[in-house]
Amino acid sequence: MPKVLGLDPGLGATGWGLIEAEGNRLRHLANGQLKTDASEPLPRRLSHLASQLESLLADHAPDAAAAEEIFVNKNPQSTLKLAQARGVVLMVAARAGLDVGEYAARLVKKAVVGTGSADKAQVHAMVQRLLPGCAISGPDAADALAVAITHAHHLASARRLG
Amino acid sequence: MPKVLGLDPGLGATGWGLIEAEGNRLRHLANGQLKTDASEPLPRRLSHLASQLESLLADHAPDAAAAEEIFVNKNPQSTLKLAQARGVVLMVAARAGLDVGEYAARLVKKAVVGTGSADKAQVHAMVQRLLPGCAISGPDAADALAVAITHAHHLASARRLG
Repeated sequence: MPKVLGLDPGLGATGWGLIEAEGNRLRHLANGQLKTDASEPLPRRLSHLASQLESLLADHAPDAAAAEEIFVNKNPQSTLKLAQARGVVLMVAARAGLDVGEYAARLVKKAVVGTGSADKAQVHAMVQRLLPGCAISGPDAADALAVAITHAHHLASARRLG
Repeated sequence: MPKVLGLDPGLGATGWGLIEAEGNRLRHLANGQLKTDASEPLPRRLSHLASQLESLLADHAPDAAAAEEIFVNKNPQSTLKLAQARGVVLMVAARAGLDVGEYAARLVKKAVVGTGSADKAQVHAMVQRLLPGCAISGPDAADALAVAITHAHHLASARRLG
């Protein structure tokens, strides 16, 4: 069964969620957050993020990966930090030989909850329902699991159509 | 004599410029552009950028590095691409054991030309004058050399004061 890794990139915390998917049957494997220390200089934080993601990919060997697209925040400085972290996340995944699907947050919400305007709590609750028994380590990890679910559905549809 | 690498990050082209600096005496060593193919998916472009920068660092073994800060463009999509590339550039430099100085474009222009509102042509001309005989491979490389010059001056002042 293919293992699908969802990623919600961020500089302070990058959420990740790993599921097993066979058609529309989903199973939770693991989830967590890759954190960096805000007191360190940006280049070192990015390097630490890369090392953590490399370990994660080596430990779990996912077959597919997907990441949230960037939502342009009202605070340009936050958006720039996020984008720099996301660049590192995409690069490390590509180096591990993974194609990385990219989904807008709206599309993830629509795929998981049924409406693109769902709030974080609704996404969290629906992820919990779709992956029974999974202990979600935080809001970023919930979003990452939602991305993994979206990508799994997309891959299943692509196979049916293919 | 310390070798200082200046970087002007970009997704399509990252400019780089390497100089040797002893106090205020500067000498040009090399400059160029790291390019990625716009027809490839973003994660692969970022991975290609990382590999090129890793080769560059291995070939030239700079002692110090600096990069331009991000100028928030009017086009948010361009800024996001730039920021993702910059994240990869900073991360690769940090992994090579380099501290990376960061300078706003305004500050670089002020350091090199004398005014923060200098245009690209003025920066190019002044870089050419400060590094006689150097063949500049393009506007991104000229900006990168300007960043290297700025960082060399900064390091020299820090040593005088230290």
